[in-house]
Amino acid sequence: MTGRAEGDERENGVAVGAGLHGLVVALDAGAADAARKRLDNLTKPPGSLGRLEELAIQLCGIAGRCPPPLPRPAAVAVFAGDHGVLTEGVSPWPRDVTAQMVDNFLAGGAAINVFARMAGATVEVVDVGVATPLSSRPGLTLAKVRPGTGNLRVEDAMTGEEARAALEVGAAVARRLVATGARVLVTGDMGIANTTPSAALVAAFSGREAEAVTGRGTGIDEPTWRKKVAVVADGLRRAGLTRPEVAEAAPLDALAAVGGLEHAALAGFCLAGAAARVPVVLDGVIAVSAALVARALAPDVVGYLVAGHRSAEPGAAVGLDALGLRPLLELDLRLGEGTGGALALPLLEAAGRVLVEMATFEEAAVTDVR
Amino acid sequence: MTGRAEGDERENGVAVGAGLHGLVVALDAGAADAARKRLDNLTKPPGSLGRLEELAIQLCGIAGRCPPPLPRPAAVAVFAGDHGVLTEGVSPWPRDVTAQMVDNFLAGGAAINVFARMAGATVEVVDVGVATPLSSRPGLTLAKVRPGTGNLRVEDAMTGEEARAALEVGAAVARRLVATGARVLVTGDMGIANTTPSAALVAAFSGREAEAVTGRGTGIDEPTWRKKVAVVADGLRRAGLTRPEVAEAAPLDALAAVGGLEHAALAGFCLAGAAARVPVVLDGVIAVSAALVARALAPDVVGYLVAGHRSAEPGAAVGLDALGLRPLLELDLRLGEGTGGALALPLLEAAGRVLVEMATFEEAAVTDVR
Repeated sequence: MTGRAEGDERENGVAVGAGLHGLVVALDAGAADAARKRLDNLTKPPGSLGRLEELAIQLCGIAGRCPPPLPRPAAVAVFAGDHGVLTEGVSPWPRDVTAQMVDNFLAGGAAINVFARMAGATVEVVDVGVATPLSSRPGLTLAKVRPGTGNLRVEDAMTGEEARAALEVGAAVARRLVATGARVLVTGDMGIANTTPSAALVAAFSGREAEAVTGRGTGIDEPTWRKKVAVVADGLRRAGLTRPEVAEAAPLDALAAVGGLEHAALAGFCLAGAAARVPVVLDGVIAVSAALVARALAPDVVGYLVAGHRSAEPGAAVGLDALGLRPLLELDLRLGEGTGGALALPLLEAAGRVLVEMATFEEAAVTDVR
Repeated sequence: MTGRAEGDERENGVAVGAGLHGLVVALDAGAADAARKRLDNLTKPPGSLGRLEELAIQLCGIAGRCPPPLPRPAAVAVFAGDHGVLTEGVSPWPRDVTAQMVDNFLAGGAAINVFARMAGATVEVVDVGVATPLSSRPGLTLAKVRPGTGNLRVEDAMTGEEARAALEVGAAVARRLVATGARVLVTGDMGIANTTPSAALVAAFSGREAEAVTGRGTGIDEPTWRKKVAVVADGLRRAGLTRPEVAEAAPLDALAAVGGLEHAALAGFCLAGAAARVPVVLDGVIAVSAALVARALAPDVVGYLVAGHRSAEPGAAVGLDALGLRPLLELDLRLGEGTGGALALPLLEAAGRVLVEMATFEEAAVTDVR
């Protein structure tokens, strides 16, 4: 990042961060306690629903009441963007596939469409940075901040102003989805080469080496992977993001330097979802890396996040550990789009329904030996 | 087991095993191959749906066609029984809770009811061995083979004839559920103290020590756990089930000696579900231990089984490893009832829908670089 951009972003980063931070409050401890008490009165041995009980408590803490509103309907937002770093040869897929997949999402033929339909969730595609010009169609929000990022190996991926604008695109989508009835949000993404900026962000915020957080993406071979690791390492060095303190102190600078437009949008999406007090289900490594940015801006956001799935990308596991989140599913998915998040939706609903629908020992006249 | 019972069961065991074995055929390799080919033509990088792709292939192998029929509607069968070994103090819960929970299932207030409703699944409760007399009610099948088992520490849990009768109860339920429209079956169970015979069966078929397969059940303390381990070890010694070859050679003998009536029913349920060519989703350690019996009777049954969840009970993990099954969910549940199986149903459906609903590269005009 250039000196000018850095000063710029830091100043505005504080403003943005403070603005969203003011809206993200800590989880409601009283509602969480009420959930714990209710869970222990339900007809099952204490704790025997394992992680669903933790999730039920979280849902109450998020909503501020027990039982919580059921986390449905769900809304998936797929933020699409392109990446200048693709010119380094980090992926075998051509850039045009980002726009082709947008068409596929809008036609309902992609994996995220299948899983969202099953969960009764809507899918909205948001062009926050696709290189190809896209025409207006139902289900597509045109909010392009710029047509693809710069090549993070040799230049900042975007300016601070662009990062803030993309963050606000994501926040606005989250606010609108909640205002129109969504009770849970799912992070989705599409962008050929977007696991590269994701790895860079995870490295920047976790302090881990490029090797430890860079994965095979859509399935690249060994030489391509080595090139990708070098690109990530070069980008981090160029931007001075070699210690996590640097990224934590100026998260929007880090985002602008080595992130992506969909990453910025997803960070805003997480923050605004949390501010609206709905759970935000993270999908894979793109969302996890964006969540690291969101947390640096407003630490309480983590309480509103649910890790849907542990992606096969190594950066996902590193990022989830850094966030202190344990994923609900581990199915070796590495597709993105929001698929791992959408597949976890029935588990969130099950956790909520336990508190709403299960009988207590007293109601069911079951002997309670606790 | 007594000498007489052993001879008896071995003879009849072969008959039962042979009868069901004749009906359980290997998965259809052609349909599985067609699924692999179709998966690679769908709009996603090859293999990027991870375990859902394996599951989709399995669904095709089971049904013998690609795309497969969607695995819905689902039917959960909760086999209920009591256990003489409860007199050893292996659980703090009184025997009456088995019957009380049957009432709770029939009233719709238990966890399995919540999860089954969400998945659009029916719940049928089958009294295969509850000690308390139960009255006829909708949703309850009265098929009591005997009112609770004997104390496996000091005597055979049941006779060979009873084991066969209970196995046939489970098989008949599976056949009827499939005949009336179920396209996937979920194993459920209820029986205070039933993790004790489950541990004994897992030890008998895996050759592991009692300590390694005996868990905390509903949440027992350390002294109770030690007692439970000793009871399992005593039962195995008494019945001569100290080497896995013994159980594998005469699975119905092992079942009668240290199993439970619901375990026998679940073994029959698995075999008849496989014979009807529908997937059978296993819940926790009770189902896993029953599946070991089923596999010894008909090895091809394993292809039809889907491990829904890895229960917190150590015997579940040991049993799943022995079966070569990897669970879809790991949520630290230890409730039984079929809860872990029912929660996995959306993943089965998602796997099926991928093959049915996703667009191919050609259909979606997405560039394919594979």
